Amino acid sequence: MRYIDAFNHFFPRRYYDALLDTPAGAKDLGKRVRGIPALSNLDERLRVVDMFENYSQVLSLGLPPVERLWGAEKAPEMARIGNDGLAEIVARHPDRFVGYSAFLPMNVPEAAVKEAERVLADGANAIQLASNVNGSPLDEPQFWPIFEVIAKSGRPILLHPARTRDMPDYPTEKISKYEICSVLGWPYETGVTLARLVFSGLIDRYPGLKVIAHHLGGVIPYLEGRVGHSWDQLGARTSDEDYASLLKRLKKRPYDYFKDFYGDTAVEGARAATACGIDFFGAEHVLFASDCPFDQEKGPGYIRATIAVLDSLGLSAQQMESICHRNAERMFGISAK
Amino acid sequence: MRYIDAFNHFFPRRYYDALLDTPAGAKDLGKRVRGIPALSNLDERLRVVDMFENYSQVLSLGLPPVERLWGAEKAPEMARIGNDGLAEIVARHPDRFVGYSAFLPMNVPEAAVKEAERVLADGANAIQLASNVNGSPLDEPQFWPIFEVIAKSGRPILLHPARTRDMPDYPTEKISKYEICSVLGWPYETGVTLARLVFSGLIDRYPGLKVIAHHLGGVIPYLEGRVGHSWDQLGARTSDEDYASLLKRLKKRPYDYFKDFYGDTAVEGARAATACGIDFFGAEHVLFASDCPFDQEKGPGYIRATIAVLDSLGLSAQQMESICHRNAERMFGISAK
Repeated sequence: MRYIDAFNHFFPRRYYDALLDTPAGAKDLGKRVRGIPALSNLDERLRVVDMFENYSQVLSLGLPPVERLWGAEKAPEMARIGNDGLAEIVARHPDRFVGYSAFLPMNVPEAAVKEAERVLADGANAIQLASNVNGSPLDEPQFWPIFEVIAKSGRPILLHPARTRDMPDYPTEKISKYEICSVLGWPYETGVTLARLVFSGLIDRYPGLKVIAHHLGGVIPYLEGRVGHSWDQLGARTSDEDYASLLKRLKKRPYDYFKDFYGDTAVEGARAATACGIDFFGAEHVLFASDCPFDQEKGPGYIRATIAVLDSLGLSAQQMESICHRNAERMFGISAK
Repeated sequence: MRYIDAFNHFFPRRYYDALLDTPAGAKDLGKRVRGIPALSNLDERLRVVDMFENYSQVLSLGLPPVERLWGAEKAPEMARIGNDGLAEIVARHPDRFVGYSAFLPMNVPEAAVKEAERVLADGANAIQLASNVNGSPLDEPQFWPIFEVIAKSGRPILLHPARTRDMPDYPTEKISKYEICSVLGWPYETGVTLARLVFSGLIDRYPGLKVIAHHLGGVIPYLEGRVGHSWDQLGARTSDEDYASLLKRLKKRPYDYFKDFYGDTAVEGARAATACGIDFFGAEHVLFASDCPFDQEKGPGYIRATIAVLDSLGLSAQQMESICHRNAERMFGISAK
């Protein structure tokens, strides 16, 4: 079986050095990324990739997103440096790295539009968006032109949860304590963002948009019942907003929008969750991904565990092919072998 | 098969009338509860229960919790009125209502201790706790004596997510928009609360405590991979807290505490999620529950859907008996038929 790993993280050299020079890089972030060689050392990363047969990666930069690390003056340049760094690695090692996603300087929406146009014309295979822009939801009007460019390109969005700590939505020590914010808050934040893309009307405006939500849709598949029945009753709990007419204005049942999103298999090797997520999205809307190299082995752990889980689910050959490589080939524009 | 519905909601007359007199009752809450007759009209509720063969309910008051509706002067009395109202209904209709859970006036911790002692001595089958006390996490020290009383009794906690809107943790319109706060935020909040009970050391202090988390554990089972592997690495993302020594201080691996909690099947009839949740907790730690009467039919909808889902999962006879009634009989102290 060919495995294309749709969502995993790497820092090219120049971007990595600049990242370590930021205030965050000098503290927790630097400590963390230094501890994981395969996140920035290309030889180490190649070693990990080569542990698996017929396995290749679509590279994405790691979080935090560009707009969180640098201000408006610096973010556009840093996004270019990061994206060009990934493009260069893909060009040099096309067998191991079959594509990449680009980050945009979302804190400068006009520059983000230009960078999206540039990288998509140059062959970027996807755009990676953090689920909020320094606390601003992605459905705010200033971001819509960016979605328009991505929708026109036909390439997918890789939606990554953004650090919720210190964000306006989650300001207190209550949530960030015990790293609850990343362990549970990230998948929740993913669900919140998908909901806002739906209810703001953004998906109706750009119906061709393909959104791949990291970690198998965040919390959405497990909350399928609520996503369906509770949102069918939108407005039952509030009287200060006219949600009844919002429901009528939407082109589809809320539930159906969520079913149309895509998920990846990066759930740290959880078998029952993988089954639940594939059941929700369907095999045509799930992509193999590992979140490499954030496992305890710092590279191969989640790749191995995820392959083993997929092998154990009793999926048909066609479902397996779709998940492991065909959906990625189609969506990212990668040649079938 | 006998079905004991472990978690569903009803307002006894006196409590309901007082609730409508509160500021919340005069607005959204009143509008909402008036629209669901089986939530407060006993004849209507009996009609719903009698639609199903060999089916009975353990009654719980509806949300918001007592401490949210009334201040410190009034909450202790209102909790008594609500609890005695449920106890009376159970006494009058022991075939249909085989038990009840009691709310405590959590905004007056000493009164909550006394009310817990009173109702547990009088035969309450469980204590229903909202997942936060007007924004204060349940693991704050003032609440520990309450957990001590419950742990001693051997009776379980029914953990209900509390309205996150207007809470310190979620202060903005960003989350409450589109009712995201209840649809997605409630199960997330459930997960946050379970995590805090673990990492605060409260579960180590009261190891006999049995916590049944509504909606099949909130988001926990789907996030099993993160709950396991990410929390094994607690501290990797932070340097300002000594989480390494916290991990060492805990008596078990974080993951194992979460596996020891209980969930109910109230997921609005979502089949794949039900399978995922039962896989996570195991059949000995899952209780049949419907969240009646919050379905679109205002009573029987989720009961019927949940029974159908359980019938479809190919569980063994023993697993089905555990989930449908034996776990409830054992934990709530209900006679086996």
